[in-house]
Amino acid sequence: MPDAAFAAWRARVEVALDLALPDPATSPERLYAAMRHGVLNGGKRMRPLLVFATGTAFDADEAALDDAAVAVELIHCYSLVHDDLPAMDDDVLRRGQPTVHVAFDEATAILAGDALQALAFQALADAPLAADRRVGMLAELARAAGVAGMCGGQALDIDATGKWGQSGLSQEKGHSDPTFLLADLERLHALKTGALLRASVRLGVIAAGADAASRDALDRYADALGLAFQIRDDLLDVEGDAATLGKTAGKDAAQDKATFPALLGIDASRARLASLADTMQQALSTLDVDTTALAALARLVVERDR
Amino acid sequence: MPDAAFAAWRARVEVALDLALPDPATSPERLYAAMRHGVLNGGKRMRPLLVFATGTAFDADEAALDDAAVAVELIHCYSLVHDDLPAMDDDVLRRGQPTVHVAFDEATAILAGDALQALAFQALADAPLAADRRVGMLAELARAAGVAGMCGGQALDIDATGKWGQSGLSQEKGHSDPTFLLADLERLHALKTGALLRASVRLGVIAAGADAASRDALDRYADALGLAFQIRDDLLDVEGDAATLGKTAGKDAAQDKATFPALLGIDASRARLASLADTMQQALSTLDVDTTALAALARLVVERDR
Repeated sequence: MPDAAFAAWRARVEVALDLALPDPATSPERLYAAMRHGVLNGGKRMRPLLVFATGTAFDADEAALDDAAVAVELIHCYSLVHDDLPAMDDDVLRRGQPTVHVAFDEATAILAGDALQALAFQALADAPLAADRRVGMLAELARAAGVAGMCGGQALDIDATGKWGQSGLSQEKGHSDPTFLLADLERLHALKTGALLRASVRLGVIAAGADAASRDALDRYADALGLAFQIRDDLLDVEGDAATLGKTAGKDAAQDKATFPALLGIDASRARLASLADTMQQALSTLDVDTTALAALARLVVERDR
Repeated sequence: MPDAAFAAWRARVEVALDLALPDPATSPERLYAAMRHGVLNGGKRMRPLLVFATGTAFDADEAALDDAAVAVELIHCYSLVHDDLPAMDDDVLRRGQPTVHVAFDEATAILAGDALQALAFQALADAPLAADRRVGMLAELARAAGVAGMCGGQALDIDATGKWGQSGLSQEKGHSDPTFLLADLERLHALKTGALLRASVRLGVIAAGADAASRDALDRYADALGLAFQIRDDLLDVEGDAATLGKTAGKDAAQDKATFPALLGIDASRARLASLADTMQQALSTLDVDTTALAALARLVVERDR
C-alpha cells in the first residue's frame, strides 16, 4: 500500500506546487522561472508525504492537506536555494541540476528564495480550512522556518563549520566532553532540519484536528525522524557517490562540517539510526489509528540511498 | 497633535520590535545581532505609523495594532537587508550605518533577512486578535511581500536597471511611447514599495474591522501614498546629499536606474507629487472619521527630506 500511496501523494503535490507557483509566461518571467527551477526539480517531497501520511491517518481529506503540503515544501525549497548560494554552501549541483544561482544569477536566486517563503505563508493563509486551524498552522510554520527552527539551525551550522574536530566548538567554550559536542550537533540539526519535519507532521495534525495525546506521540515520532534523516544524510555523504545522490559527495569532510560519522564513527552512527527507528516504531504503536504510511516513511528515511 | 502621536507610535513600535526580536545574549548570537542591526537602526517607521494612523482612526486599541506594526516593519527591514547585498544593490551604507553584510558577513545577512521574514508572519499569527482577522492580515502581508508585491517589484527593478534611457525597456518590447515607459515604472513601484504601504493601511483596517466603503477609500489613499513616496525618493536622490539622507546620493543615475525625474524631468515629477497629495486628501475627505493623522502622514511623505 504505502508505495502506491506515496506515488499518488507525490503526484498530487507536484500538481499543487505547479498551481501555486506563478505563471512563467507572465512578468517578471525570470523570477518566476527561477522559483519553478528551485521547486519543480524532482525532489523527494518527504515533507509533503509527512503531511499527507499524518493527516489521512486521522481521517482528513487529501484536499484539506494540499496547502499544508505545498507550504512545507516551498519553505524547504527556498532554504535549499539560499543554502546553495556562493556566500553560504556554494554548491553548483542540486538533484542533478545546476543550482538556481548557477542556472540564473545570484540576485535572482536570493529573490526567488524570498518569494518562495512568502508564497508558503500565502498558501496556508488561503487554505480552505477554518480560520483557527489556518492560524495554528501558520504559527507552527513560522516558528519552524525562523530563528527557533531552520534559520537558527543554519546559523549554528555556519558558526560551527571549520571549528569542529580537534578544536571543537564545545572545547572552545571550555567543554572537552564529547557527549557535549554531540548535544551541540543534535541541537543544530533539531533546528536546521528537524523543526520543519516536525512542523510537517504538526500541520497534518492540525488540519485533521487530532487529539492532544496523539499529537505528543507524533512529536516523538517526528523528532526521531528528523534526527534519523540527518544521520542517514551524513552517512550518505561518506558512503554515497554523486551520481546516486544527485549532489556532490564527500563535501562535509572537505568543508570540515560537523557530522555524526565524524563524531561517533560510522558503526555507532548506524547503531544510533537503528535505535531511532525503534523510537519511531514505539511512538506509532501508541496510536490507535492506521499508521502504515507513517511507519513506511520512517523506513524510507532510515534506508534511503539518496 | 500628529507630531506627538507619531513620536508616541514610533516609541511604541521600537519597544514592540525590541521585544519581538530574539535575545542577542542567546545562541546563535551572531544571527540575532545581525537581525537587530537590520531593524533597530533609527528607521522612519513609516509603515507602522500607517498601521497606527489607520487603525486608531477606526477606534482600534493601539495594543491591537502592535503586532501588525511590527510585522510590516520586519518585512520592510528584511527587504532592505537583502536589497543591500553585493549581488543586489551592493550598498555599504544604510541610515548612516554599515549595512548588515558589511557589519557582519554576507551569509549572516542573507540568513538574517530570511529569519526576519519568518518572524513577521509569526508576529501576526500570534497576535491577540480573532483568528479570522489574523488570517486576513496574514494573507494581505504574504501577498504584499511576495511575487504580486515586493519581490515581484524588486525583480522588475533588477530586470530594468541599465536598460532604460535611450534603449528603454518598453522600446525593446517594440513600444516607443514614453507613457508606456511611465506605466512600466509605476507598475514597478506599485509592487516594490506600494504593495507593502497599502498592506500597512489594510492591516490597520482589518485589525479595526472598518467597513468596505472605508476600505476602498483607504486603498485609493494608500496607492497614491505609495507612488508619492517613490517620486519623493527619486527627487531626493537627485537633490539630496548623503549626510541628510543617511545613504549614498546620486546612486540611481550612476546605476542607470529608472526614476521619475529621469523620465518626466524634475518639474513634472514635482507636479505629479502635488497631484498625488490632492488625491490623498480627496480620498480622506470621503471618510467620516478623524483623519488628522493620515493626512499628516501624507504631508510627511510628500515633504520629507530623507
